Amino acid sequence: MMEPVPAARIFTLLEPGPVVLVTTRHAGRSNIMTISWTMVMDFTPRFAICTGAWNHSFIALEKERECVIAIPPADMLDTVIGIGTCSGADTDKFERFGLTPVKGRYVRAPLVAQCLANIECQVAEIIAPHGIVVLDGLAAYADHQRSEQRMLHAVGDGTFVADGERFDRREAMRSKLPDGV
Amino acid sequence: MMEPVPAARIFTLLEPGPVVLVTTRHAGRSNIMTISWTMVMDFTPRFAICTGAWNHSFIALEKERECVIAIPPADMLDTVIGIGTCSGADTDKFERFGLTPVKGRYVRAPLVAQCLANIECQVAEIIAPHGIVVLDGLAAYADHQRSEQRMLHAVGDGTFVADGERFDRREAMRSKLPDGV
Repeated sequence: MMEPVPAARIFTLLEPGPVVLVTTRHAGRSNIMTISWTMVMDFTPRFAICTGAWNHSFIALEKERECVIAIPPADMLDTVIGIGTCSGADTDKFERFGLTPVKGRYVRAPLVAQCLANIECQVAEIIAPHGIVVLDGLAAYADHQRSEQRMLHAVGDGTFVADGERFDRREAMRSKLPDGV
Repeated sequence: MMEPVPAARIFTLLEPGPVVLVTTRHAGRSNIMTISWTMVMDFTPRFAICTGAWNHSFIALEKERECVIAIPPADMLDTVIGIGTCSGADTDKFERFGLTPVKGRYVRAPLVAQCLANIECQVAEIIAPHGIVVLDGLAAYADHQRSEQRMLHAVGDGTFVADGERFDRREAMRSKLPDGV
């Protein structure tokens, strides 16, 4: 059950640095890739992802100027790895990994029903020499009912870490939090 | 006890998306800020951080073109928050938070002895309209003896999450890992 995430809180989905899935739709086909090179840029929310022509999804980002960032929970680890180790050039990854595409409101790239959260994004700019794709988050949805709520973090050496102990420091951070968070 | 991290593995310090401390040295003074807007850009390793003139450290990055990215363990949470909620404009944060500056090999910005890992960085470029500072990692060091090895992840709403359960998927990821990792 995907519920809307208030605009002011959308950046909090990416700020913890989870590994994410990025979906695109181009030439009548949906595709999905695994990425852990992402960064929050502001609270509007604006994000950066770092990718390039070596990823089959890059041409879809360039041509369609939109995507969905989906955040997989820890129990999707092997799907995340499977998605990251094959190519949309020769594989329908939604079919292969049993992912359910869900129609978004603003973009044609599909949301992923199985994920913890989905962010509909528009490409604001591609900073070409660096492979930085600047994205504006248009809307987001989260599934608070899913039993597995832990995000995954990629170490980059083939190991992964799930979210662990949580600490509430809202009072100490109050002066630094944007409105609505 | 800080031990060198092999160059090929330096990116693995930032890939999991931890909240970090960034140290600078400018006009005879060291400063340190808390940042969670970071991104790996390649394996060389190149990183991006997103900041701007609202941070007192920004002028030091612009002028000195170097910094250290230090990764605090979970038991430093309240120090991380303290560093992030005061300004180097009127505070010697190393003194206030009892941090031990350690001389690096390549840059004048200090390493932080209390942290899990430290990366000496050179500013490659500042992508001005976006506040993206592109950094090249020159050398890194990690303290594997420290009893607390969990990184912290900032959610952005005043809550934080420490690393939890670990998963080894090196075999499944083999085709995607760069040499030396």
